[in-house]
Parts: sequence; structure tokens; C-alpha cells
Amino acid sequence: MKLLVANLGSTSFKYRLFSLNGEQAALLARGGSERVTDYGAAIDHALGELARGGHVQRGEELDGVGFKTVFGGELTGCVLADERVEQALLDTADLAPAHNPPYAAGLKLFRERLPSVPRVALFETAFYQWVPDYARRYAVPEAWHAAGIRRFGFHGASHKFVAERSAELLARDEVAAVARRLYLDGPRPIAGAPLRVISCHLGGSSSVTAIVDGVAVGTSMGLSPQSGLVQSTRVGDLDSAALGCAMRRLQLAPADAERQLVKDSGLLGLSGVSGDLRDIRAAADQGNARAQLAIDVFIHSIRHWIGAFWFELGGCDALVFTGGIGENNPWLREAVCTGLCDLGLFLDPDANASSPPEFNLADPDSRTRVLVIPANEELVVAREAARLIAARAIPAGPPLAAEPRLPVDGNPPTLDSQLSTPRSTLSSRL
Amino acid sequence: MKLLVANLGSTSFKYRLFSLNGEQAALLARGGSERVTDYGAAIDHALGELARGGHVQRGEELDGVGFKTVFGGELTGCVLADERVEQALLDTADLAPAHNPPYAAGLKLFRERLPSVPRVALFETAFYQWVPDYARRYAVPEAWHAAGIRRFGFHGASHKFVAERSAELLARDEVAAVARRLYLDGPRPIAGAPLRVISCHLGGSSSVTAIVDGVAVGTSMGLSPQSGLVQSTRVGDLDSAALGCAMRRLQLAPADAERQLVKDSGLLGLSGVSGDLRDIRAAADQGNARAQLAIDVFIHSIRHWIGAFWFELGGCDALVFTGGIGENNPWLREAVCTGLCDLGLFLDPDANASSPPEFNLADPDSRTRVLVIPANEELVVAREAARLIAARAIPAGPPLAAEPRLPVDGNPPTLDSQLSTPRSTLSSRL
Repeated sequence: MKLLVANLGSTSFKYRLFSLNGEQAALLARGGSERVTDYGAAIDHALGELARGGHVQRGEELDGVGFKTVFGGELTGCVLADERVEQALLDTADLAPAHNPPYAAGLKLFRERLPSVPRVALFETAFYQWVPDYARRYAVPEAWHAAGIRRFGFHGASHKFVAERSAELLARDEVAAVARRLYLDGPRPIAGAPLRVISCHLGGSSSVTAIVDGVAVGTSMGLSPQSGLVQSTRVGDLDSAALGCAMRRLQLAPADAERQLVKDSGLLGLSGVSGDLRDIRAAADQGNARAQLAIDVFIHSIRHWIGAFWFELGGCDALVFTGGIGENNPWLREAVCTGLCDLGLFLDPDANASSPPEFNLADPDSRTRVLVIPANEELVVAREAARLIAARAIPAGPPLAAEPRLPVDGNPPTLDSQLSTPRSTLSSRL
Repeated sequence: MKLLVANLGSTSFKYRLFSLNGEQAALLARGGSERVTDYGAAIDHALGELARGGHVQRGEELDGVGFKTVFGGELTGCVLADERVEQALLDTADLAPAHNPPYAAGLKLFRERLPSVPRVALFETAFYQWVPDYARRYAVPEAWHAAGIRRFGFHGASHKFVAERSAELLARDEVAAVARRLYLDGPRPIAGAPLRVISCHLGGSSSVTAIVDGVAVGTSMGLSPQSGLVQSTRVGDLDSAALGCAMRRLQLAPADAERQLVKDSGLLGLSGVSGDLRDIRAAADQGNARAQLAIDVFIHSIRHWIGAFWFELGGCDALVFTGGIGENNPWLREAVCTGLCDLGLFLDPDANASSPPEFNLADPDSRTRVLVIPANEELVVAREAARLIAARAIPAGPPLAAEPRLPVDGNPPTLDSQLSTPRSTLSSRL
């Protein structure tokens, strides 16, 4: 199965082409354009590159195109992306202004160019469909809730992959199987002790998600991606009285105050140096106190959310670090995991300092495993899209109508996809 | 030492008169007025009642008047309340509109009526003076921080009393002594293992505070009292994007949206029934699903903050419940403490169901003690005021100038007050 994953930024179009055979995936090609003003031309250019590379002669040969859509309000999941999805992206663009309009445009262009090729939208909120109501609700008036002000969560693609991969690495194959088919079958009961995982996606933006038996039960991001952990330039958790207070005291218009919480806050606002942790750490090493404070606040926010979930889950079997910051900074992992003897968590400093792609950095005596699992979000999108397409067994042959009305949700799939579990590379350490 | 504690609401004036001898206190009288339109008349009436009761013939016989002031921005602590305090209350009234104006008015009236009697302001933020910077900062732009947008914390009087009393009950006398003199001497190093306490003040408004060796190191309330746990009608933690989102989607003016987060949210907003947990529980018992959801969200918010601090402290020696809800609801304490075997916390159901004023409800095998400690905030104010007045040895005799300029802060006190530790009533259970 050949899957194209399209990544649309406000001024960029990037793609990766994967070949998938069950759960086995290979990257065939990658490319894209920066400073894009015409997404249609960028897509045509990409299809031309794929043809010249001998990967697909015509776009119609693709088995599907996957999109990591960010936010569709109540519309979520891993779904076939018809015009309803395009409209939901536009209707909710106020909460994801940088991401939703390009994705809505991209979906429309692929629909027009390749009407016979299924488009799959994997929403970043999809993993949180089964979070209990009490963890999704804000204590706002009913009218606010009805207007869509509730916890949605983001980074679902990354945390869902952690749910699958951590279960594989911990030899909990039955949990891994449930996690892989979650968007097809929903949660399924598991025999034996629950597997409690806390997943830290730390990167350009960051979040912590609590996972039990492969299913998310809570996450640090709420209504918008500016909540939860301190982000690169987004504020993270903040008293809801602050916006009004800043508007009054600093004479800011609402739109200016809101923009500052997205663009001028987070690690950048704290440090005054940069939104990039590498720059901030370099400045802190040279004695910049604000840079050091930014690091300390960031670590404190990570610990805050891990702790909240640790208690909620009544303990933690595996704490996972993923994302660029989480994978590449032993010093930060050590700071997050410090002082936890009473909770039964001990790091192995040598393991923490090592750098295989996947590894356990907990001491053998630790009751909690601590794992690094590299993120690969494009691959995740390709896999989820392939699972959905295989399960729905959509005929790839005859072209559909020019504006296909594919079901967004509906009956449970009847055809199991044939999943093969990747071999664990870690079992000796776990 | 005779101390009057004045409690000023937006339309009420209540008082209690205490006799203090070191740490021993006795309530001599209480009274007050509702539907107050003239605070001066209410104060004169109170002083008349005290004279008729034979407690003090003239207001000048009082050794001090204590006020549990809520919020003064950067001005905090347990301080002699001169006009600078009155001005700070007015300057920061936007964040405590129900409380600050009456207290500013009350302080002025007592200054004018009883210029020779020291007035002591115990700020609700005072206990959080020593919270580390990384736990006080929001990741906002520097200009927002400079404008006073940071974590202040509230309920300090109650949580500080828990810090003292829990240390006494756990026979950590050296910690209790440090906690008692915290506002005089600041934090002091303690020998031996740190005493880690998590204090849950659950009542009309609610918060969780983390305490190490008698000193607060973090709290759930931040810039305003509408953050942290779900409150009676205040929203608690909420994505900072929600206010702007509600303004756009519900066509609300900023002031209306802000008011709804204070008046129409919290348990009331969730349940649609009431802001009083007793009403909500009765409705839930009769099958009202929204009432049950309100209870579940409330408990979830308590567990969230306990968990965050449990991890931050690397464990917890005593979890304390105080305030009307915390003291009187075994079912809620059980729900908060459920599923924590891996963290070493077990309740004793019989102890939890008992109702002495102070008790430990943990099972003897529990690594964490779980205590109920009744709140008595007026007594706390009297004690703190007496400690300050004794330490500063202010002459009570000759009247000062009509507008005394008493120092708000300054050199450390040189005269130790003679503190006597109240006898523990709990030692047999602990």
C-alpha cells in the first residue's frame, strides 16, 4: 500500500511517501516546498517529483493521502476526509489559526486533483475521544461548554504511537494490539494488571498524556494548544483571569493580548533569549538568570503534569520521553526524574547518557520503567491511514464521483486488517 | 493580650474578641452586623457591645485589631497596617473586588477611631512569600510579569495553620516552632528528614498547598482566587484561550465573560443546581447526572493538585483535609484517597467515618498520615497578630499621632515572643 502523507504549514508543503505492508513501513520518498503561496502548484510539483522518481506514475496510483489535521472541534478521530472535515477545520480555525486553514485548503485541492484517492484525516485530538467526562469538562457555565469550551487535547498522533510502542517494548502484546486498532475498534478490556503509561512529548510544543491499557485517560493540553506545559512561544497553563488583567493593566486590545500568549510567551517570554531550548541552555550556562529560570519553569511544568497523572493512575509502569527535546537531553530527563525514591523511580545514569534510538533509562531496581521512544509523526499518520483504508477495504480501482461523499463515521469495520507486530529492539533491557 | 479580629464583607461586619496568652487563646465575644451600609456605624456598634459586655471599656484598651486581608499584590506578609496597606488594597482591587474595598475602608475607619491601637493585616498571600521563583512564574511576556501577573496564592491563613498544627500532631516540634514564627523569622533549616505536608482547604472556596518543613512551596491558586480547584461559583483552572473564545462565540463583552467565570461557574456552572456541595450531592443521589458530574470534576481537580505536589515533594508524610467540605465529608475524603496502594496510602474506613475535631484517618500501615484539622481562621488571625505585636513590643499606652506611620517591614524582630505549644490531642492515634 502506497501512502502519501501531506504536511501543510502556513507557508510550506512537505510530503513523505511510505510503502506499507501491514505494520511494516518503508519511506520511499520525501520532499516539499517552502515559502508556498500556491498550494495547488506545490502539490502538482510534488506529484511530478514522485513520477520522476519512479514511485507512482500518476497520483491515482496512491492508495491514500494522510493528513495530520489538528483540530475539528467535536469532529475527531481517524476518519475519511470528506467536505464535512474541510468545513469543520474552517469552522474551528479560531483555535488553530496556523494549522486549520492550510489543511482545509490542502484537503480541497487533493479532492479536486485526485478524487478517487481516499484522503484520511488523523486529528491530533483523536486519541482523547475516550477520556472520561470528568477530565474533559471545565467548570464553565453550560453555555460555554455548549459553545465548545472543553478539553480536547493535542499531540494525539505522537502519544498514541507511544501507547503502541511502549506496550510492545514492555512485552504487553495484548495492550499493543488494542492500541493499534483503537481507532477501528475503540477501547477493549485487557486481562491482567492495567498498563499505566505517562507519555511526555517534549519538543517545539509539549504535552503529557496519561494512558491506561493503550487508551488516553487525560492530557495536559486542554481547549487550545497554548495550555498545559510551557511551550516554545505559547504560554502553557495560566490563570484565566490573566488575560483581562493584562488588557486593563497594559492597555492591550483583546487580539493583541491573545497573540502575545501564543507568540511572545513560553520559553521565549521567560528567557528573553529564544524559544529554542538549545539557545536557552547555552545562555543559562553563561550565567543568564532568566534563561535558567525558563528552564526551571519548564521542568516544573513537566513535573506538575506527570505528578498529577501519577496520582490519578495510582502509580506508573512506564514514563516515556519522546519528541526532540525529550529524546536528546539526558540532563532534562534527569531533572524531571529527580527526588523520586519514595515513588520507586530511579534512573541509571549510564543508560540515561546513552543514545540508541529506543532505550530504558531506569535502574533495574526502579518500579517504573523510563523509556525514550523516538517520535515519527509522519509514519504514524501513514500507519493510521493505512489501517483505516485496509479496514474499510475501499476499492482503489474505478474512480469515484468528482465529489465523493465518503462516510466520516458509521458502522464498525468488518474487515480486519492484517497487523504484524514489529519486533521489539529493547526486550533485553526491559 | 486582647485582640479584636474584624471580618469585613461587601455588606457585613463581623468581629471576634480573643484573649491570648502566648499561643493559648480564648474567645471572649463575637458579634456583628449584616446589610451594612455604614461601616463606621457598625464599628461603633461593635465597640459599644464590647463595652456593655464588660470586655473592654474603651476601644483604646484593645492590644490590636487583626484583619485577614486578601490581596495586596507585591505587598504581603503579616504586617502592621498603615496607609500603605490601605492603598495597596485599593490598587489591587481588580483581582479581589469583593474583599479589598471593604478592608481598605475598615482599616481607615479603625485608624481614625483608634489611632493608638495597632492594626495588623494578615494577607491571604503571606504564606507564599517563599515559594520558589520557578513555581511563581507564569510563562508570560516580561511586561505581563512586571504588571503583576504571577502566582500569588490564597488561603494562606488556613494553610499556615495546617503547617503548624500538622507538625504538632506529628510530634515534629522543631518544625512546628519554625512554622509558628515564620512571619517573624522567615524559613529556618530543620534537622532530620523533611516534613512534607499536602494541605487541602476545601470549603466555599478551595485550594491545595504543598508545605515542606513548615513553609509553603507551592499552591493551586495563582494570580486570582478563580484558579486551581473547582470552586463554588468560580471556575478553577481553565485554558487561558477560553475567555477570548467565549467572547467571540457567545458574543460576550469582556466584563460579562469575566463575571461569569467568577459568579456562574464552578460547582454551580457544572451542576446547574447550586454552588453548595450539600445540595449537589442530594441532587446526585436522586439521579441528577450533571450534579454527579460536578462532584466528579471537583474530586478530579483535588486529586490533580495533590498529585502534582506529591510528585514535586517526592512523596507525602501527611495529607491534611481542612475547611467545611474537607472536615465533614468522609465520602469525599475516600474518593480523593482511592486507588493509592502503590503510593503507600491506605485509609482506615472506621477512622474516616469518625468525627472528633482532629483525627488521623490513615490505616496504621499507610506510609502517609491523613489528617483532619478543623479550620479556625479568625483564631489564626488573632494568633498571628498577637505574635507580631508581641515581637515588636509596641507600647500600648500613650496614643500615637493621629496618623501613625508604623513600619510595614524593616529589620528582623529582636524580641522573641514566648510561645507555648498547645498539647497534641492526637498523639495516641499518630
